[in-house]
Amino acid sequence: MHLQISSTQNKTVKRLIQLQEKSRNRKKEGVFVIEGFRELQLALKGNYQLQILYYCEDLMPFENLKDLSIPTHDIYQLSLEVYKKIAYRGSTEGVIALATPKNHSLAELKFQQKNPLLLIAEAPEKPGNIGAILRTADAARVDAVCIANPKTDLYNPNIIRSSVGCVFTNQIATGSTQEIIDFLAQNNIHFYAATLQNANVYTQENFTKPTAIVVGTEADGLSEQWRTKATKNIYIPMQGEIDSMNVSVAAGILIYEAKRQRGFQ
Amino acid sequence: MHLQISSTQNKTVKRLIQLQEKSRNRKKEGVFVIEGFRELQLALKGNYQLQILYYCEDLMPFENLKDLSIPTHDIYQLSLEVYKKIAYRGSTEGVIALATPKNHSLAELKFQQKNPLLLIAEAPEKPGNIGAILRTADAARVDAVCIANPKTDLYNPNIIRSSVGCVFTNQIATGSTQEIIDFLAQNNIHFYAATLQNANVYTQENFTKPTAIVVGTEADGLSEQWRTKATKNIYIPMQGEIDSMNVSVAAGILIYEAKRQRGFQ
Repeated sequence: MHLQISSTQNKTVKRLIQLQEKSRNRKKEGVFVIEGFRELQLALKGNYQLQILYYCEDLMPFENLKDLSIPTHDIYQLSLEVYKKIAYRGSTEGVIALATPKNHSLAELKFQQKNPLLLIAEAPEKPGNIGAILRTADAARVDAVCIANPKTDLYNPNIIRSSVGCVFTNQIATGSTQEIIDFLAQNNIHFYAATLQNANVYTQENFTKPTAIVVGTEADGLSEQWRTKATKNIYIPMQGEIDSMNVSVAAGILIYEAKRQRGFQ
Repeated sequence: MHLQISSTQNKTVKRLIQLQEKSRNRKKEGVFVIEGFRELQLALKGNYQLQILYYCEDLMPFENLKDLSIPTHDIYQLSLEVYKKIAYRGSTEGVIALATPKNHSLAELKFQQKNPLLLIAEAPEKPGNIGAILRTADAARVDAVCIANPKTDLYNPNIIRSSVGCVFTNQIATGSTQEIIDFLAQNNIHFYAATLQNANVYTQENFTKPTAIVVGTEADGLSEQWRTKATKNIYIPMQGEIDSMNVSVAAGILIYEAKRQRGFQ
């Protein structure tokens, strides 16, 4: 039998809601919230450590969770009322977990191949765009995603949701722009800054060597360090009335040009 | 001197709010709302007819609007209080207009070149994705965007906003899937359905002839008609843990592969 929480006044309820809403609480407690069955599966696949599992038997019979071989003895059963109060998403699946964040330092990055392909985003802000970028990175199986000068906590529930759990399947590092540039130089990784200044059309560059594609924000573009230190600046030809694209679309076009050149290996 | 509206009780206030919120009202009145200076510029460039212009002198001195050569004598000045009540967006610019929707029938489409490139989306739902797709279509200067079995009114304020006004700069047609397939056949346009079934890698196809790229929804993919009638089904190789990408990213990758093959002409 699992411990039960059936009162919405239980202090766990408030704690879980605040952990979802407040980055500050996540940092202070060193824990974050995973909601949804698929997300949970992907987090386990990504070797995230679960601390506590909460489920609502009405929506997610525990039977369905047994096969996840969840390495925890802290399992709580929530009443439907309690679950609904905690759940962040509209269409939820009756399962919530607390997990330990990973260490996203550059020093932790490991590459499986000699010619790694990295995707770097500087200061992305909108969770929807970050999520879409992480989905593309997962699909392209890039070796790592780096977030330079991060503005948003990776474990923001909107990033987890919009990435469809790909925040767990990618190898992700964060750092300052300078730290990431130093890391690329130390590892002999060529990097290509998506910007209009002094740039070649992206298809003219050879992305089959160790390569990082770097994109900035839609509002401000990339900071000067990227533009001046890059192996080469690259641009996507635009011939319309406006001169910008959604940043996650631009990242997808550039990464898949690299994939094409690499024969989708 | 322009007529002034300074009471939030004025019936115009309620009308404008409802025109933004309710597709039904837009259809009934045959009019929609444009908010923002850039959006207004793009709508005029796209030959939209304005019916009424509203501005708030505190935020947008009329001096700045003179050069738009707005073909209307119906210009109203709004008090700041009235403007703020009507404005849909957070960061607004003090200008709102009522404009006449275009006729988006397939019969109206005109192609400037012999080898047109079209982007077709079936039943897209999220305004953010539709907006991103329209931005890509503008950047790639596709000859037309077709929305098959539309689920959302194109003049939804969230589409206008997320497209950054590209809903006005693209040639857009809507129709049923069958109507669009018939149109493509009649015009000898090859069309490529993005789907996994019986599909080739997208880079193996030749998109330099008259070409339409067709994408479906993330949840349901493309309907059977597209998959069985297509010149060829195509897929983007995905090697990660999940087997889907954001639909606007996928559309961007496919359209820019066509652009690459066409030498970005």
